[in-house]
Amino acid sequence: MSLNNIKSFFEPSSVAVIGASQIITKVGYVVLHNLLMNKKKLIFNGDIYPVNPKYSEVLGVKCYPSLKSIGKNVETIIIAVPAQIVPNVMEEAASIGVKAAIIISSGFSEVGNVKLEEEVKRIGLRSGIRIIGPNCLGVYDPYSGMDTLFLPEVKTLSSGREVVATPRPFPGSIVLISQSGAFGAAALDYMAGHGIGVRCFISLGNRCDVAEHELLLYFAEDKKTKVNLLYIEGIGKGREFFETSKEITKSKPIVALKAGKTGAGARAASSHTGALSGIDEIYGAVFKQSGIVRAMNLEELFDMGRALNLQPPAHGKKVAILTNGGGPGIVAADTCEESGLSVIKLSEDVINKFEDLKEKGELLPIIANSNPVDLTALATSDMYIKALKILLNDENIDGVLVITLPQTPSILDDVIEKIADVAMKQKKPVVSCVMGGTEMAEEFRVRFEKIGIPSYSMPERAARAIYSLMEYGVHLGK
Amino acid sequence: MSLNNIKSFFEPSSVAVIGASQIITKVGYVVLHNLLMNKKKLIFNGDIYPVNPKYSEVLGVKCYPSLKSIGKNVETIIIAVPAQIVPNVMEEAASIGVKAAIIISSGFSEVGNVKLEEEVKRIGLRSGIRIIGPNCLGVYDPYSGMDTLFLPEVKTLSSGREVVATPRPFPGSIVLISQSGAFGAAALDYMAGHGIGVRCFISLGNRCDVAEHELLLYFAEDKKTKVNLLYIEGIGKGREFFETSKEITKSKPIVALKAGKTGAGARAASSHTGALSGIDEIYGAVFKQSGIVRAMNLEELFDMGRALNLQPPAHGKKVAILTNGGGPGIVAADTCEESGLSVIKLSEDVINKFEDLKEKGELLPIIANSNPVDLTALATSDMYIKALKILLNDENIDGVLVITLPQTPSILDDVIEKIADVAMKQKKPVVSCVMGGTEMAEEFRVRFEKIGIPSYSMPERAARAIYSLMEYGVHLGK
Repeated sequence: MSLNNIKSFFEPSSVAVIGASQIITKVGYVVLHNLLMNKKKLIFNGDIYPVNPKYSEVLGVKCYPSLKSIGKNVETIIIAVPAQIVPNVMEEAASIGVKAAIIISSGFSEVGNVKLEEEVKRIGLRSGIRIIGPNCLGVYDPYSGMDTLFLPEVKTLSSGREVVATPRPFPGSIVLISQSGAFGAAALDYMAGHGIGVRCFISLGNRCDVAEHELLLYFAEDKKTKVNLLYIEGIGKGREFFETSKEITKSKPIVALKAGKTGAGARAASSHTGALSGIDEIYGAVFKQSGIVRAMNLEELFDMGRALNLQPPAHGKKVAILTNGGGPGIVAADTCEESGLSVIKLSEDVINKFEDLKEKGELLPIIANSNPVDLTALATSDMYIKALKILLNDENIDGVLVITLPQTPSILDDVIEKIADVAMKQKKPVVSCVMGGTEMAEEFRVRFEKIGIPSYSMPERAARAIYSLMEYGVHLGK
Repeated sequence: MSLNNIKSFFEPSSVAVIGASQIITKVGYVVLHNLLMNKKKLIFNGDIYPVNPKYSEVLGVKCYPSLKSIGKNVETIIIAVPAQIVPNVMEEAASIGVKAAIIISSGFSEVGNVKLEEEVKRIGLRSGIRIIGPNCLGVYDPYSGMDTLFLPEVKTLSSGREVVATPRPFPGSIVLISQSGAFGAAALDYMAGHGIGVRCFISLGNRCDVAEHELLLYFAEDKKTKVNLLYIEGIGKGREFFETSKEITKSKPIVALKAGKTGAGARAASSHTGALSGIDEIYGAVFKQSGIVRAMNLEELFDMGRALNLQPPAHGKKVAILTNGGGPGIVAADTCEESGLSVIKLSEDVINKFEDLKEKGELLPIIANSNPVDLTALATSDMYIKALKILLNDENIDGVLVITLPQTPSILDDVIEKIADVAMKQKKPVVSCVMGGTEMAEEFRVRFEKIGIPSYSMPERAARAIYSLMEYGVHLGK
């Protein structure tokens, strides 16, 4: 399998937009506009050719009546014309040696037009043109400037006010591969809003050719990629996916959300992108064997992605919880245990060290020597650091979930940098929970995250994040 | 049981702050300061007496050496002195006819001082003084201005910048009763940050006297209360709680989060507020029988609270999902089914009506007549309204979960008011999901919520919210 082909989707030397349009709400307008803007900003380096027999010029650029009439090499085409015309476009593309096609057009197997999709697929196979889609959003690569998303960055509300609608997240190291375009668009919005950088986003749609495993292979070789996130409704090429994932997770983590778990979900998934969703338990077992960490909901997919992007995997599943609030500590402990982690009893050694600190007056005498370690509402930054060091140094503990409730009078924001300083000097993972919805809590979370500690607003989310680091780490050690 | 006693905690004609202090970081300072501010703002109407033999004046108000020396009736006392002194304070309070005591002080059964707590409890029982606490935050009632939270509203960061630390949510109709003070503080922060109004917040701590069921009874009679939220680590008076809840849920919903589900969580809960957490399954069964809706995590507690506060309960568990994105629809369907709701197949009648609209060109021909109803990325506001009306009018459907992804070009923000308009004209519940983390999505959610439709950023959360309306509604109909 040649990964060169795959590269044409992300770094083409030339692209043609089939169905380029002058009408602002049309896909062919938005895609062309975004590419031209990226070219102007010097992010995108390829040549850009609008194709549409209706126009001689679109957006100030010469428009060609057909692919052939361009008269130059075209590496990649983006197709945004009605489904019925797509086979003709593909035939023409084959005749001029196009390497890759992103078919945005819908109206194929997802609405029952299986034959039309088969026809397109056959042309691809015969001519060697690789296909992403049909019925997809395509690709967004912030490094190369390749952007086929037809969703406008800005929209105008009925009040006349302009708001950010589908922002593009900044460049980062998380690859997101999604079957669903809608989910993908919402996901990009979520990532942009939460400051999560993206290495590349790919919406696969009906997936008549290029599937997850080829993209995973491509990004396995890519130095900018640290984590792969998958949104899956059903896997077409099961064996390839399984074998590839097994290999890739030896060096880079994969987190997957499988939608269509229940009867109703599966029925919907099957009508949605024409994929037949298999039995949920099978996916669970395959994920487990391949070292794929399974996210149980959308929020978790990103929460785990952030954790695996920032923190090292753990060598085991024994977790310590450090907190200044009893209730949130209990909730975190519950979720850890429910996820299969072990909220271990503290070792003699740790207890002795805690007792020493209590005697010296450096920890409060009322602290129970149990896990979660509850420093109480009187906890100071220094108490956090001293307790955290002891926990991280204990060979019985594989990672620490730190809850800092910033609302108490005794805790100051210097705790953030101090915790990060201790955490970054060693190799066990640390994740943070800061509860609250207003300024102070938000400030804590953002600063934790910036300094390399993934931070969550709910103890359950932090627990699932450290679970992902432990689950993946234990797989790595096998 | 006299509810008059309970009223003394929320609307006292006079309060004494035992342990009033001039030192800004002390509990006795923060509590007194907040009460005096509320008095100045004319929210709090009671008389306020600082008590501390060390001072003759605190915060510009005369300070008394003892309760007796006040020489006037004192209805309620707030105790913020070391644990050992609390019995003396209680004896003195008994001698002057105090009715209620909020004991903020810690150092009782939660650290093994069971005898001291028993002593305090006995004085209360003998003298008729009702007690909230010890080891608690006490009470926040935005209507009466009674505020014993010792957490400052504003804190100063190390950079010198002042930020909102523990904001007080605005007045609303949700009662929040929490065993954990830390959870309570974080919860208030969350509610303030997400614009969720609170009727009253009570942190119960060790709960040596007043327990959940009495507060539930008190707020059952209260016209401002619409929903009760409980954070529970363990129930002390099981039978009373069970019987009371059964009665109350006939008119007002209760949502409960039970922490300490697992072994580790239960161990932590038991050391935390001295409560022995029972077996998780028993709680599940008791909740079910009493008509209490169980939240599985903290976020859900508030999500369900918002749903029950804004929307009517449903008569059954048959749900329809209306969406412009396939993937999120599938995820919502999964969560609905996993929660025991039925994502029903559409009736002949609904399908016929959809077909009519398709023929007229008012719905797209590619829409499959299945549930979730996927209007596709080309959906307009008008399509939403037409489909929603048909779904809500179908006797086979008990409620509708509407997903609007605002990122597509064809959907405009007028869809919000139009959906609300349809929803508010009938009696079945409607909840909304708007995915995304930036401006447009945020704007959609806030406007939905303001107009009476609870709105969530993830399909799973919206699904659990409509589950709470269906679970409670079915219980009501029994």
